[in-house]
Amino acid sequence: MKLGAVEAGGTKFLCAVGSDPSNPEQIRRVDTSTNPLETIAEVIAYFERYGPVSAVGLASFGPVDYCSGSITSTPKIPWQNFPIRAALERGLHIPVAFETDVAAAAFGEQVAGAAQGCQDFVYVTVGTGIGGGIISGGHFVRGKMHPEMGHLLVRRHPEEPASFKGVCPFHGDCLEGMASGPAMRERWNAAAETLPEDHLAWTLEAFYLAQACVDLAVVLSPRLILLGGGVSAQAHLHDRVRREAARMVGGYLELPEIAAPALPYPGLSGALALAREALR
Amino acid sequence: MKLGAVEAGGTKFLCAVGSDPSNPEQIRRVDTSTNPLETIAEVIAYFERYGPVSAVGLASFGPVDYCSGSITSTPKIPWQNFPIRAALERGLHIPVAFETDVAAAAFGEQVAGAAQGCQDFVYVTVGTGIGGGIISGGHFVRGKMHPEMGHLLVRRHPEEPASFKGVCPFHGDCLEGMASGPAMRERWNAAAETLPEDHLAWTLEAFYLAQACVDLAVVLSPRLILLGGGVSAQAHLHDRVRREAARMVGGYLELPEIAAPALPYPGLSGALALAREALR
Repeated sequence: MKLGAVEAGGTKFLCAVGSDPSNPEQIRRVDTSTNPLETIAEVIAYFERYGPVSAVGLASFGPVDYCSGSITSTPKIPWQNFPIRAALERGLHIPVAFETDVAAAAFGEQVAGAAQGCQDFVYVTVGTGIGGGIISGGHFVRGKMHPEMGHLLVRRHPEEPASFKGVCPFHGDCLEGMASGPAMRERWNAAAETLPEDHLAWTLEAFYLAQACVDLAVVLSPRLILLGGGVSAQAHLHDRVRREAARMVGGYLELPEIAAPALPYPGLSGALALAREALR
Repeated sequence: MKLGAVEAGGTKFLCAVGSDPSNPEQIRRVDTSTNPLETIAEVIAYFERYGPVSAVGLASFGPVDYCSGSITSTPKIPWQNFPIRAALERGLHIPVAFETDVAAAAFGEQVAGAAQGCQDFVYVTVGTGIGGGIISGGHFVRGKMHPEMGHLLVRRHPEEPASFKGVCPFHGDCLEGMASGPAMRERWNAAAETLPEDHLAWTLEAFYLAQACVDLAVVLSPRLILLGGGVSAQAHLHDRVRREAARMVGGYLELPEIAAPALPYPGLSGALALAREALR
């Protein structure tokens, strides 16, 4: 049975089809238009070409409202409160399963990646923003809205340049304000991937991500934290975060495993798995 | 049908019977002996006197191991790894439901207190230590062990005396190190309840508890945070925490309601409710 997957982002949408969540096929990019209906029309055209599919999993950038199936307070004004789930359902006439991009990515890693068999873990992505999906006792943690763990309040590193206030427009120096890709770029005037391994940047980055890991560990007691996304693609970073988190937790509790995600497209894999669930 | 409840603490055990979780009856105290078998014998004698009961809910101080039904790494050496659940089962020959004291208290507030009808909330208790129970999507959050949110890493208040390093033996100035009853006593040389409302102590206390509320909000997206325990019995404190948390979150998201628990004995009420569940 062929399933569909859409990963909706603020810059681009990725579409895929497939029957196995571990293998999204025919991955194509659709630019996120300022006119949502235009983007949706391109997504529907994709499924007309590469389908038919029996259901679609939609992994959306957030914040989202699960009731209405829409993106809520994005700075991309035309997308504010746009009922993206309903728009796809109306165009495709098949079930559309709706999740945040990060929750879908967590599910993808659980079904086909680094969290297989794990019922208690967190998927964190560090890129333009910092976000995460949580599975606890086998269930997504949603609550009133959904996790927004990029805005954890963190302590500043003692060697942090005092002039650097952090890039979060709401909090300045929250986790995202200090450790996202744009934070690194603004602080060091260079893209993270161009900074050498022994640069102070990585000491600071590991310090902030380790705080997030400790805070997640003491709140959720997960077995595993997956650190993914652009910034954390640095192979040396996971080791530093592990060491730093161990230092911070001071032997009080056994930290969860801290590892990298395993899938090339965890969001698309999760979306395929969600589409499969929608048919059960 | 009569049910039993035990709230096991490091200083005292409270025992109760009742048929309605909102009303634990015949509440009696048993001192926590250095010989666990002695304490258990007194608890069993209590139920022989005030029973018979059909099941018991056991709300235990932690950290606990759910598999073995024991308290694990307590500084009270004779209680380390003592199989408290099995000891009660063997003595009473009835089902014993086992939870942490804070998770039981959360459940009590959900069944009969301030969180009725709420499926996504956190119960935090601030006293000798700081701990909490989490219900997310109607399920207890447990994970590998259980939440240990007293050890969230917090930022120091700018007016915090530099000489005060915090009282947590593992982390110094984590949440519990800065905001527990012993932290207030050590910092101000006075018990929290003797400090006037306009004392700097309460500004600092609200600052640390607000950070915990924001961190819990961005990780769990709860609808409600109940702040209970000795220190937070100060009527003025909840308002200050609300204001401080709103300032910290900077309008980024709608904070959960922050309120006081409603029950006089949330742990015993939760234990009665757990006993009832055990019979279903």
